[in-house]
Amino acid sequence: MELRELLQTKIDLKTKPLGSLGLLEKLALKTGIIQQTEQPELRNPHLIVFAADHGIAQEGVSAYPPEVTYQMVTNFLNGGAAINVFCRQHAIALKIVDAGVNGEFEAHPDLVVQKPRNSSRNIVHEKAMSAEELTFSLEKGAEIVRDVFQKGCNIIGFGEMGIGNTSSASLIFSAIHQLPVSECAGKGTGVTEEQLQRKISILSNVQQRHPAVYEPMDILRTFGGLEIAQMTGAVQEAYRNGMIILVDGFIATSAVAIAAELNRNILDNCIFCHTSDEHAHEKMLRLFDQKAILDLQLRLGEGTGCALAYPLIQSAVNFLNEMASFEEAKVSNEE
Amino acid sequence: MELRELLQTKIDLKTKPLGSLGLLEKLALKTGIIQQTEQPELRNPHLIVFAADHGIAQEGVSAYPPEVTYQMVTNFLNGGAAINVFCRQHAIALKIVDAGVNGEFEAHPDLVVQKPRNSSRNIVHEKAMSAEELTFSLEKGAEIVRDVFQKGCNIIGFGEMGIGNTSSASLIFSAIHQLPVSECAGKGTGVTEEQLQRKISILSNVQQRHPAVYEPMDILRTFGGLEIAQMTGAVQEAYRNGMIILVDGFIATSAVAIAAELNRNILDNCIFCHTSDEHAHEKMLRLFDQKAILDLQLRLGEGTGCALAYPLIQSAVNFLNEMASFEEAKVSNEE
Repeated sequence: MELRELLQTKIDLKTKPLGSLGLLEKLALKTGIIQQTEQPELRNPHLIVFAADHGIAQEGVSAYPPEVTYQMVTNFLNGGAAINVFCRQHAIALKIVDAGVNGEFEAHPDLVVQKPRNSSRNIVHEKAMSAEELTFSLEKGAEIVRDVFQKGCNIIGFGEMGIGNTSSASLIFSAIHQLPVSECAGKGTGVTEEQLQRKISILSNVQQRHPAVYEPMDILRTFGGLEIAQMTGAVQEAYRNGMIILVDGFIATSAVAIAAELNRNILDNCIFCHTSDEHAHEKMLRLFDQKAILDLQLRLGEGTGCALAYPLIQSAVNFLNEMASFEEAKVSNEE
Repeated sequence: MELRELLQTKIDLKTKPLGSLGLLEKLALKTGIIQQTEQPELRNPHLIVFAADHGIAQEGVSAYPPEVTYQMVTNFLNGGAAINVFCRQHAIALKIVDAGVNGEFEAHPDLVVQKPRNSSRNIVHEKAMSAEELTFSLEKGAEIVRDVFQKGCNIIGFGEMGIGNTSSASLIFSAIHQLPVSECAGKGTGVTEEQLQRKISILSNVQQRHPAVYEPMDILRTFGGLEIAQMTGAVQEAYRNGMIILVDGFIATSAVAIAAELNRNILDNCIFCHTSDEHAHEKMLRLFDQKAILDLQLRLGEGTGCALAYPLIQSAVNFLNEMASFEEAKVSNEE
């Protein structure tokens, strides 16, 4: 029997009605296939938050001022943000990457500074990054994943922080799927309807400034940002290492979208953790033919959806490894 | 300021966009109000599984033979069922109540035997229980909750095991909301479409056998079962003690429906943990104007939805207690 069949049989013979653990059964199957074993195991889970500023934030596309990126990274390092709370709860190791934040931080054991520049360029005027800055970002994103993989991590989630980054994600999504940007943009952290219309108009201008951008890496280079570029490299490296990749919301999915355009198999290792309240996210998931684990109307980023979904993935692995079979428990199966 | 406002302000001043933790924010507010504090705390969580057999199971309404109730209770006591796995994962204390199982068990530290009889009566012919059996069941259900409350538990979930019990739940739901039983019945643990039509026809006959049943406790006594009756008493007692009540799927919701008919305020203490794949459950939740935390297409019972949702409720409490405010973290709030 092939592994897929072996796993499905193991799941079906557990003491429960056939299929009654729903999505958890699909997760158990998926983790087994990713790890190529009938006894999958989640080891040394990590969450990496990539943070960077965005030139376009100067145009007023966000409800928050650009300096919030720097302030929130400081908050992460002090343990006061939502992602800190949820990672502590589930013993997920948290690393913060300065992938292009405006400003310098004091050294901190959980901080990795690896940026090609402070802030992406303003895409209203030029591409978000140079070819060299893109290459640097992809490599550095891969490097940190390689590092935690070598420390025994086999499940990794990615989060982001960057005022203005829903604009980048919307443009990436629009470019990859050839959809009008108005269908790809949302209220981000909470702009008003009027501000949203302004945001869409700015994004349309950006598209006119950069016509004929089709190739995935050119899309990434053009619309940015630096944290999305590092995340793309990170996703690629996690796939190369056979890790389980936890995908957070709208921004994280845009990085996966770039990586998946280049290699569709990457989706086999991705677990989509939650459906963002950013409405275009659901559309992205549908185009990937994926259903997310949680739908809690989150729109926070930071990787919070990954951390919150983590115990459910653990539950999937646990039932597969720990539940008794009908035979072991001497329970009668269906008549 | 009233507590509700104090809590909402505390939530709104955390370092995250307004409302961006979605349902978790509503859960934080709810737990604070239930516990009447700005610092809610989940203490000594318990899950009680009530198990009983059903006279109607003899009519072939389930995909499984009736002896599976006894066998599954043995499986619970041996630690091999899904609910054991998920309770272990989240350090939730698990108690199994024999509320009317056919057969006797050896003594076990996690087993409480408190049954008025073996199996409910066959509702095709008579009411599920006598008035005395109903009273006994309600009191015993309350008693075990009082017991764990006195041991410091302030959050409790209820599960059930009983071959045939989706039939009881469908009849209860149909009677309370005056809906045709065909709209209230589903495939339970997995009957075929043909078996479902047979099940609906049997349930219609039961309704004709017991016309004019309107009063909630009469509905419960007539359509049973014994585990649903104990669960109803348990829900009432948990509310009296100001505990957070975790509501599992279709069967557990039918017990809550009886209790809520008698005192609508009970819903203020209930957290609906998941939307069952049993399609009538979604309808029940809509009638309660409630949205469940999880939608994982579960249809297992045992309280599994409660155990799986528990870490998300803990996350809601944790962000409320542990996240920094904009002021504490010196992060700029919305412009």
